[in-house]
Amino acid sequence: MDWLEVDTTNCSVAAASAIVGDRWSLLILRDAMNGVRRFDQFRQHLGISRTVLADRLDRMTELGIFERSEYRETGQRPRPEYRLTRKGWGLQKVLIALREWGDEFETPEDERLVELRDRSTGEPVELALVRRGDHHVVDPRDLVTVPGPGAARR
Amino acid sequence: MDWLEVDTTNCSVAAASAIVGDRWSLLILRDAMNGVRRFDQFRQHLGISRTVLADRLDRMTELGIFERSEYRETGQRPRPEYRLTRKGWGLQKVLIALREWGDEFETPEDERLVELRDRSTGEPVELALVRRGDHHVVDPRDLVTVPGPGAARR
Repeated sequence: MDWLEVDTTNCSVAAASAIVGDRWSLLILRDAMNGVRRFDQFRQHLGISRTVLADRLDRMTELGIFERSEYRETGQRPRPEYRLTRKGWGLQKVLIALREWGDEFETPEDERLVELRDRSTGEPVELALVRRGDHHVVDPRDLVTVPGPGAARR
Repeated sequence: MDWLEVDTTNCSVAAASAIVGDRWSLLILRDAMNGVRRFDQFRQHLGISRTVLADRLDRMTELGIFERSEYRETGQRPRPEYRLTRKGWGLQKVLIALREWGDEFETPEDERLVELRDRSTGEPVELALVRRGDHHVVDPRDLVTVPGPGAARR
């Protein structure tokens, strides 16, 4: 079938793009996958305005990508925190693919920020196309993120 | 190192997001990877305005994702066409990751549009995390896209 004749109403790329085809959403997801949960931590680390951050977090919470709960520090009022759901973690490969592409085409080798490694062997891990059911696949739970040559403190 | 202390100036995800963190750009890339090259074909298939399409194609051409050339049909003036460069094809895994996520979380199984298969064996192919240098990886040139259960003509 010629692609131009295909009805793309059900296109999964279009569905995914409508949700994450936005620069701030991608950066929020990046931070969340690196352990950030609190509104003010997102805001400070991303340098994003309160309004835009609240808008994106609300939207991704409505879409089931984040789950909102509350935490309370001693003597403070309760504040919301945002945890990735299974659907949110499902976007991990999108983020890894973006990083690998940026590493290859945009960021000089000695400035790369992070590397993914196999937790037990320490071997570098990357995204690849494999036959379904291949046994050489690394479980995301066995991944560890290590600082790359370009990692520096703020 | 705590992620919140990491200086993300060189972040490859941020670099990639700045370029493709845009819904229309992702849909243009999807169509280009399915063989679309001509301005009017993009426009008709995506239902996108001339202005927005020209803006995104120009931007991605400046960034080295597309290469512009000309074609001429008999009796017509020359018109531009847009081909993905190596850098552009480098985004293939981003698009596959988006589709796989959309397939899993947004599109009912019987409405999925395309499947990726190994050209020689016909086996389903998917993205996975593997140890670098793994020999079970499928070369993108050995891929074939086949219509899924939800593929229908417009």
